[in-house]
Amino acid sequence: MLKVGVLGGSGYTGFELIRLLATHPEVKIVAVSSRAQEESAVSEHYPAFRKFVDLRYVLPDDPVFEKGVDVVFSALPHGASMKAVSGLVEKGVRVIDLSADFRIRDAAVYEQWYEPHTSPDLLKDAVYGLPELYRREIASARLVANPGCYPTSIILALAPLLKNRLIEEDSIIIDSKSGVTGAGRGLSLTTHFCEVNEGFKAYKVGGVHRHIPEIEQELSLISGKEIRVTFTPHLVPMSRGILSTLYVVPREGVKAGEIDEAYRTMYADEPFVRLVGSGEMPSTLQVRGSNFCDIGWKLDGRSGRLIVVSAIDNLTRGASGQAVCNMNIMFGIPETTGLFYVPWQP
Amino acid sequence: MLKVGVLGGSGYTGFELIRLLATHPEVKIVAVSSRAQEESAVSEHYPAFRKFVDLRYVLPDDPVFEKGVDVVFSALPHGASMKAVSGLVEKGVRVIDLSADFRIRDAAVYEQWYEPHTSPDLLKDAVYGLPELYRREIASARLVANPGCYPTSIILALAPLLKNRLIEEDSIIIDSKSGVTGAGRGLSLTTHFCEVNEGFKAYKVGGVHRHIPEIEQELSLISGKEIRVTFTPHLVPMSRGILSTLYVVPREGVKAGEIDEAYRTMYADEPFVRLVGSGEMPSTLQVRGSNFCDIGWKLDGRSGRLIVVSAIDNLTRGASGQAVCNMNIMFGIPETTGLFYVPWQP
Amino acid sequence: MLKVGVLGGSGYTGFELIRLLATHPEVKIVAVSSRAQEESAVSEHYPAFRKFVDLRYVLPDDPVFEKGVDVVFSALPHGASMKAVSGLVEKGVRVIDLSADFRIRDAAVYEQWYEPHTSPDLLKDAVYGLPELYRREIASARLVANPGCYPTSIILALAPLLKNRLIEEDSIIIDSKSGVTGAGRGLSLTTHFCEVNEGFKAYKVGGVHRHIPEIEQELSLISGKEIRVTFTPHLVPMSRGILSTLYVVPREGVKAGEIDEAYRTMYADEPFVRLVGSGEMPSTLQVRGSNFCDIGWKLDGRSGRLIVVSAIDNLTRGASGQAVCNMNIMFGIPETTGLFYVPWQP
Amino acid sequence: MLKVGVLGGSGYTGFELIRLLATHPEVKIVAVSSRAQEESAVSEHYPAFRKFVDLRYVLPDDPVFEKGVDVVFSALPHGASMKAVSGLVEKGVRVIDLSADFRIRDAAVYEQWYEPHTSPDLLKDAVYGLPELYRREIASARLVANPGCYPTSIILALAPLLKNRLIEEDSIIIDSKSGVTGAGRGLSLTTHFCEVNEGFKAYKVGGVHRHIPEIEQELSLISGKEIRVTFTPHLVPMSRGILSTLYVVPREGVKAGEIDEAYRTMYADEPFVRLVGSGEMPSTLQVRGSNFCDIGWKLDGRSGRLIVVSAIDNLTRGASGQAVCNMNIMFGIPETTGLFYVPWQP
Repeated sequence: MLKVGVLGGSGYTGFELIRLLATHPEVKIVAVSSRAQEESAVSEHYPAFRKFVDLRYVLPDDPVFEKGVDVVFSALPHGASMKAVSGLVEKGVRVIDLSADFRIRDAAVYEQWYEPHTSPDLLKDAVYGLPELYRREIASARLVANPGCYPTSIILALAPLLKNRLIEEDSIIIDSKSGVTGAGRGLSLTTHFCEVNEGFKAYKVGGVHRHIPEIEQELSLISGKEIRVTFTPHLVPMSRGILSTLYVVPREGVKAGEIDEAYRTMYADEPFVRLVGSGEMPSTLQVRGSNFCDIGWKLDGRSGRLIVVSAIDNLTRGASGQAVCNMNIMFGIPETTGLFYVPWQP
Repeated sequence: MLKVGVLGGSGYTGFELIRLLATHPEVKIVAVSSRAQEESAVSEHYPAFRKFVDLRYVLPDDPVFEKGVDVVFSALPHGASMKAVSGLVEKGVRVIDLSADFRIRDAAVYEQWYEPHTSPDLLKDAVYGLPELYRREIASARLVANPGCYPTSIILALAPLLKNRLIEEDSIIIDSKSGVTGAGRGLSLTTHFCEVNEGFKAYKVGGVHRHIPEIEQELSLISGKEIRVTFTPHLVPMSRGILSTLYVVPREGVKAGEIDEAYRTMYADEPFVRLVGSGEMPSTLQVRGSNFCDIGWKLDGRSGRLIVVSAIDNLTRGASGQAVCNMNIMFGIPETTGLFYVPWQP
Repeated sequence: MLKVGVLGGSGYTGFELIRLLATHPEVKIVAVSSRAQEESAVSEHYPAFRKFVDLRYVLPDDPVFEKGVDVVFSALPHGASMKAVSGLVEKGVRVIDLSADFRIRDAAVYEQWYEPHTSPDLLKDAVYGLPELYRREIASARLVANPGCYPTSIILALAPLLKNRLIEEDSIIIDSKSGVTGAGRGLSLTTHFCEVNEGFKAYKVGGVHRHIPEIEQELSLISGKEIRVTFTPHLVPMSRGILSTLYVVPREGVKAGEIDEAYRTMYADEPFVRLVGSGEMPSTLQVRGSNFCDIGWKLDGRSGRLIVVSAIDNLTRGASGQAVCNMNIMFGIPETTGLFYVPWQP
Repeated sequence: MLKVGVLGGSGYTGFELIRLLATHPEVKIVAVSSRAQEESAVSEHYPAFRKFVDLRYVLPDDPVFEKGVDVVFSALPHGASMKAVSGLVEKGVRVIDLSADFRIRDAAVYEQWYEPHTSPDLLKDAVYGLPELYRREIASARLVANPGCYPTSIILALAPLLKNRLIEEDSIIIDSKSGVTGAGRGLSLTTHFCEVNEGFKAYKVGGVHRHIPEIEQELSLISGKEIRVTFTPHLVPMSRGILSTLYVVPREGVKAGEIDEAYRTMYADEPFVRLVGSGEMPSTLQVRGSNFCDIGWKLDGRSGRLIVVSAIDNLTRGASGQAVCNMNIMFGIPETTGLFYVPWQP
């Protein structure tokens, strides 16, 4: 049994981690931290955990995280996470960091979008935790930078196209839509039920969302060219799910069959990607509560553009499910262990 | 008092027409038709009308529509509408048609996307009922083709840019999202609560939605060039509202100030367009139940694209509210009469 | 034109007041206060008001409320409201208080459920603003205590039964369900979208909700006996609406026809009560955004109990719509002015 | 591995059965029937099953159900179910029937509320599948009548009180609220998104819901007295969940401590009942997707009534989860196998 610690276990990402780990057959949760909920029972803060979790929150600097666990998940906010994580990694604890702190490989870019990086030396050791792209590196990583929710839905959708040079790299437009858990459990008018209900809207319009450098970094690495994207996130009146609609221009002469082939070659054997048939397109409902990424695509002959649509659960595939998958890979546990459940429908 | 008849009063478009007309100070509803609900009370079919509407549904071929009214709204399905409408127009009744039947000026294009047109001669008399573009023509029209919901949200958002030649005409990508009333009151799995709830999805992907020829026709007329667009509609788990996110490439050298100026010049004095300030973007919640179209925009300096976001209520501005506005214009009633109410929030 | 001031215009009750007053044909809104939003534009705080309200928030102690208005609505929290209101009433300003401060006629009871009352002398002048019961007293009141949302839905449902002595007074059980606007616009986990969505629950179970003394006071006055009720409120994942399901035991020998007759006699001519036919029961959707109270009832022959169901919009009939109705009555304006609109459906 | 067949696998109950069985470690799904979807792939009808279920629907009279399985679940509608089930039971196949057909022990009562019973002789063999009450009988049953959703939430809430004679048996009033999956996947206006959203309502008011005889039968058996209840179901704008609020009068002299003790004695060791502490009350969100029944209670000292609140997921504990639990018991599999997962929150 792997002994596991969770830093930052009071928000939704923390909830989702504990939910998946609590019934994972190879895992024992040893400690969960929360500064705000210190010493209160985890199952009091989240009554869904009654009968599953019999722990009290500890402080994030509790020695248990250094000495008593095999792996630590950090669901701390960015900034706080890099400080907590760097100490653990130095002490030899393997860490899966769900914050943005180790996703950006260039400390200068990180600083430009976030803040000055306090552990830039660790960046070269961090592996970007997208199993379909970096499975081998994850297996031996001591620090995994778990991908952002929007980036996961976008990179998986575009990777086969860029890898096979099927599209114009400067044509990428991304229109993403997220459920409200993406905004976290903190309180704000943005997440007040009566402001969300019947209120669909765009936010951070115009190239300012912090997931942009992460998306561009990974797409650039896949294609071998520097890529800039247009990215607009939206808030959907629902709790879970991200649907990304991507618009790209196929390279001249590219045929529909080549596109299908690229997707199939890359994903046919992947346990957590499902290619949706020609007729239907993915829906957030079909992936809810699961680690799947469902992908569909269609050529628009009239306008000459290719439309790709991907759907994930932002908390599972977009955060904690992917993190647990990374843990499985890091410790030689079969990748689907504790994760292979039918999505929550209806 | 205008005597008004409504053809097709059992669906949501019909509901919205009756809702607005029932308290319109210059109108008396004389007859409402529904083949399915024949002879039952309108307020039994829609209990919200208790104390407001004391009529029973009649058949669509009831003579009252020819002889007893000043104006007829048709909320019949396309195909059925052109048959009913043409007879009325010939007899001198002024008609506002909410179906698609008279929106496409070219019968061949109509046939390509819908079916053969049975009254092609009437097409030249039909005025496209978007007041901001055709106010003068509407005033004297005997047949108004009331715009589609998606086209309304899109044409209003792009008109100032195309009119002033500020953008590349071949760069238009439209990502639209609609509430479920857009799918009508008819029964289908698509509108079943448990299939919609938490289920955000795209539909009719790849240039196949029937609003495309309408959008392209009007944008082409504004710009004087033939325009092709990429258009993807989505279904949002909410009842009312359309939000369209538009991606365009500004013509080289165009400055942000010119864009602002174009919007202000065209819309500053329009009663039913609200330009949203620089900070915020529109939300469907802010226009719910109203005839407003809220528009925001932002230049993405990094990717060189301009993002425009517009929000309407699909049943009000996208159908029945706009139809009532057209009626006001046709009969010399101040345009905002019976329509100028605060949106339904929260 | 009545000159109107609104104290406490940043919450949902304030929003609803301004919404209704902004298009009321006999009213001019002169001032709106908010300590938190001081000096910011009302239409910035609530973008739905763009094109309708061109005011900035002032402080609640702004002299305009004493000197520049004919009537003041107070949507301040209880406690704060009695302090602000008493000064105004003493200066001769007529006030409609939407807080609980003047609803309880006995200062000792008020203190028991809320806090010590600072203006107990004013209590005898306050009129409980339920038009169907106190229309005449409201007309000449200088201070109207606008009823609570739950009490409105409950008192209207039971009044005909108690007035006509048709039920056992000690048998009343009330199971009420409210939309989330009832919890206000303030931030708390209780109103976080992701905690509300799919989360139906009871709260304040066991005779502890502060609306109980108000309900019991009014029911006791109607029946001439001291009445105790069992009352359980619930939170429904929707924005607006209260549905109350009431269980009572008919007095021995009472016939169904007498019950029907009691409702009809009391409400047939009331503009804002709609008696729902035998077949259907009321729904919150049918009263949304309106001042109506819809009431249905059914005898359960098997168990010998009578079930009454009433529906209101908690913000409109349960607060601000009723307050505007009271204003109409106080100033001799026809009661339905500015309030007679079709409910927001769908 | 148990070989399992599912009759009626196209509705929501069928979906939920397949969802739970597909990842149950001791089960292999051999056949799923659907007359309407015959021969189409199960994962086409329910895309959530992609990668989990590789079967095509067969007809309900396919011989596989008689010869190729160890146990059959019937999610057929009542009437159809008793016909299909009786043949299988006679052939020695063990059956768990999720319809109402074998829940009512008296064929005359069944006929009064449903229709004439075609297999009355089988009724005496049927075991009511509520594990907390009939665990031992279930273990050896050849036919289990799986309880209805409302009855499950109600019987579990009242059993400790009736068993210990703590309440007046004629005082029971039940106010239940259900999510929309309770109305099934069939199409009707009742389940149209736009009619449900913001539309909370009561239905089948006045002692006419078909779950009443089932509730009364079981409560009567527990208490040894014939019990009549008042029962009002409501429809909540959410997909899953039932919350029942129960009002009863404690027998004179009963103390709060006795009530607590009765609940603890009966349920402390039950794996699928969770007693919610004094502070909080259950919520449908805390049991979503799970087999738990959460129960809370509170004495209302003022009115002398006891309020009990229970929450279940109507599809899981109220139907298919309980059915799988019964299967576990029937075949000597540990009761929580395949069912012990954290509820779906948020």
